[in-house]
Amino acid sequence: MTVKETYDHMMSLAAELADLESAAALLGWDQETNMPEKGIEGRAHVSATMAGVRHEKLTHGELHDLLLELKEVGGDMGPENKAQVAALWRTHDRASRVPGELVKRMAKTRSEATAVWGQARKNKDFDGFAPKLSEMMSLQKEYADALGHDGTAYNALLEEYEPGAKLADIERVLNEVKDFLIPFVKAIADSGVEPDLKCVLGPYDTKKQGEFGAMVIKAMGFDLGGGRVDVSNHPFCSGIHGGDVRLTTRYKDDLRVGLLGTIHEAGHGLYEQGALAAHARTPLADIQSLGIHESQSRMWENNVGLSHGFWNHFFPKLQDMFPEHLASTDVNGFYAAMNDVRPSLIRIEADEVTYNLHIVLRFEIERDLLAGNIEVKDLPEVWNEKFRTYFGIVPPTPDVGVLQDIHWAAGYLGYFPTYTLGSLNAAQFYAAAGRALPDLEEQIARGDFIPLRDWLVENVHRWGSSFAPNELMERATGKPTNAADLITYFKTKYGELYGLS
Amino acid sequence: MTVKETYDHMMSLAAELADLESAAALLGWDQETNMPEKGIEGRAHVSATMAGVRHEKLTHGELHDLLLELKEVGGDMGPENKAQVAALWRTHDRASRVPGELVKRMAKTRSEATAVWGQARKNKDFDGFAPKLSEMMSLQKEYADALGHDGTAYNALLEEYEPGAKLADIERVLNEVKDFLIPFVKAIADSGVEPDLKCVLGPYDTKKQGEFGAMVIKAMGFDLGGGRVDVSNHPFCSGIHGGDVRLTTRYKDDLRVGLLGTIHEAGHGLYEQGALAAHARTPLADIQSLGIHESQSRMWENNVGLSHGFWNHFFPKLQDMFPEHLASTDVNGFYAAMNDVRPSLIRIEADEVTYNLHIVLRFEIERDLLAGNIEVKDLPEVWNEKFRTYFGIVPPTPDVGVLQDIHWAAGYLGYFPTYTLGSLNAAQFYAAAGRALPDLEEQIARGDFIPLRDWLVENVHRWGSSFAPNELMERATGKPTNAADLITYFKTKYGELYGLS
Repeated sequence: MTVKETYDHMMSLAAELADLESAAALLGWDQETNMPEKGIEGRAHVSATMAGVRHEKLTHGELHDLLLELKEVGGDMGPENKAQVAALWRTHDRASRVPGELVKRMAKTRSEATAVWGQARKNKDFDGFAPKLSEMMSLQKEYADALGHDGTAYNALLEEYEPGAKLADIERVLNEVKDFLIPFVKAIADSGVEPDLKCVLGPYDTKKQGEFGAMVIKAMGFDLGGGRVDVSNHPFCSGIHGGDVRLTTRYKDDLRVGLLGTIHEAGHGLYEQGALAAHARTPLADIQSLGIHESQSRMWENNVGLSHGFWNHFFPKLQDMFPEHLASTDVNGFYAAMNDVRPSLIRIEADEVTYNLHIVLRFEIERDLLAGNIEVKDLPEVWNEKFRTYFGIVPPTPDVGVLQDIHWAAGYLGYFPTYTLGSLNAAQFYAAAGRALPDLEEQIARGDFIPLRDWLVENVHRWGSSFAPNELMERATGKPTNAADLITYFKTKYGELYGLS
Repeated sequence: MTVKETYDHMMSLAAELADLESAAALLGWDQETNMPEKGIEGRAHVSATMAGVRHEKLTHGELHDLLLELKEVGGDMGPENKAQVAALWRTHDRASRVPGELVKRMAKTRSEATAVWGQARKNKDFDGFAPKLSEMMSLQKEYADALGHDGTAYNALLEEYEPGAKLADIERVLNEVKDFLIPFVKAIADSGVEPDLKCVLGPYDTKKQGEFGAMVIKAMGFDLGGGRVDVSNHPFCSGIHGGDVRLTTRYKDDLRVGLLGTIHEAGHGLYEQGALAAHARTPLADIQSLGIHESQSRMWENNVGLSHGFWNHFFPKLQDMFPEHLASTDVNGFYAAMNDVRPSLIRIEADEVTYNLHIVLRFEIERDLLAGNIEVKDLPEVWNEKFRTYFGIVPPTPDVGVLQDIHWAAGYLGYFPTYTLGSLNAAQFYAAAGRALPDLEEQIARGDFIPLRDWLVENVHRWGSSFAPNELMERATGKPTNAADLITYFKTKYGELYGLS
């Protein structure tokens, strides 16, 4: 076979894999939005079989040989083809390192541990969860060893969510964030400024919230002819396949929950739409870095959706839609309420500033757990002690403390830091976009988001998984992920809101 | 391997196949209900890949050897295991006989021919469709030859939809139906009785139609905890997997369209729920006879849903819901309007009596086309001539004549007769249920449908594909499919409604 024939053959197998992932994505989306309650057992079988078929094709010897041959050709193929090979190789290689027997044990333990966790959280009983968590931790070590690493098991797990990232780099940048945030959050609390939250607390009618959200994401450039918005308990975005990218959201009385959730998921959705438009049915459409993916959701949610300019444009429309809530509020009061910062117990309800302290805390604990520096049984104490140090408050019960997140029960170790990488990258992209688009602030203040969307398409979305995260950051912003832009953004915005010098 | 091990291994492969079919079913359901318009191209790839993976596993040598070995064991396995082997063998064997190259050509021609057909129907231009239809007819002959037959190609195609059925049997029973219906329909037209249709024509509010339909199918015993009802252009029922059976319907101003469509699909749905409850993830849950499947939808739609007893119970509820339409109508007038019989051009809008003449006409034409006794170019003339003979009217344009159905464009030859087999089996089951449940009419007249549903579960649903259609008919009704019960039902019901002696 010529190199072209080998490449085309590999890409046809890759297209099949993409199709299988599309089918699995639809099964997952449907389970959260439409599936009748009694379908749960049947659906579990279908999803397991689909995962098995995909694994079989992903680790197949034929694909292995084609990829090996193409890796040797290397640079002669042109950068895009080379990137396709590299992206699929990474997925293939990781899947091939893990014995099928271990994959099945992990799936079984995940299913058991998340069920036990759900019950333990309900009962506010950490001890009921501890044995399963210990089992999951042993499995995660075994999994990391199967993947292979340089002595730091955490790196093998982190690689799953953030290609090329190393624990030492994450530690450095998260420490920088932490050292800035602890005194900054305290200064905000001590400022005496306390926005009046009445204008965001509602209760806001959910149907009208949905209409407002649809107007916003349409303005962001999310294509509803190639996507949908539905309701689910836990909001998510799923790029099913080309021309079909779906968001979910949820509505509460509090306007912030549904609206910011919708904008967040639409940020992910724009990335999926852009990557699929450029690379549908190829490995590059499979976005491998969660730190980059999360930057797109967080940039739209925070840097844009919580900006004064954004509300300069949208607040009058919101007032028209909800005169009974907002007639006596002005845009400044509303903007301050939307940006209320205060220590709180629950990560997913936290403001954009304290959110990152929640992440630092989880990152430090999972790192130390995996390294054996702390033990599962000591987790509640470690959690509460850190919480007091970082936030000045302590969770009264474990359901709003150490038991609040599903990640550890599900075996998603190494996932948490990517949330803060997302915030860092978001601030960095937004600053770079501002340099490239001198009118950015004015555009946003008049509701014209398309130049920003186009900048993101050009610099981020259309590349899919072409570059490792730090390479993409360097190309788009001139430097790898670092804390400076996020810190500057927080200092400027919240310094003004809270009258900090 | 022991027989038990061989059987268990075969069944684990069968379970995987069932899971793949579930995933494909969800993709199909979603395409008709939720998929954004731009998803069409991506979805076609996903569905094609899923079909390919299924075909690969269904025709795999390992499965072939296991099935062959188990077929030899035969009766020693017990009847249910034997039926499982037979059901999967049938699917495996048919799939194995057709070369992959031909499958692909058929999929391509189907896709092209249905597109050309849609355009031709819009343009009322049969000649624009004729070349593609000729191509499809050649392919169907090639397909029938690949499957193998006794000299009658039609039998090979018919077998797809009706296991064990032969052209000669279908001809005999459909001729009997035709010979009864032509004078019967004429007698109705000449009776001078003309029900006042105003009470069914509406316009009825679609939301309230949906609420009424939900009440009806709940009373029928359709489990909405393991199913859903949605809206699509063409109503259908899809048994996704255990605990997840979905109906769609559509609403028009005319009450009959949405309500009868909902009851029809719920009849299919009850069958799926019963078969999946008994045989989920096994070959027996895959209902192979359309003539039996259609009997379940038609029995609920016609023998039950269009009965005087049914409306004795539901008409007062309908009146309460729509007083503005129904205050001045009584149950007899409403019942007469629901059962209006008259020759009409469009099959899917026909009443339950003339419907079967539409089927006879299509059956005779497709039989003669495949046998080479008529040519594609002569179809409009043949159609119109037969139409005049059977209905006394002639379609003014081909869009409401020979071009109205998608079946031939899609290559579904042998499908049409199963609609009338459904009507025949429905009347036969209903008569048998009446013998087993002496209070059936009274139960229905007071809205208690559960004894009938339970009789169907016991005699039809729970068997899935355990028996060939005529064997099931014999067990449940004492005789194979025949025309007597349908003719008696029509004579009794419409004789009374139209004052025929």
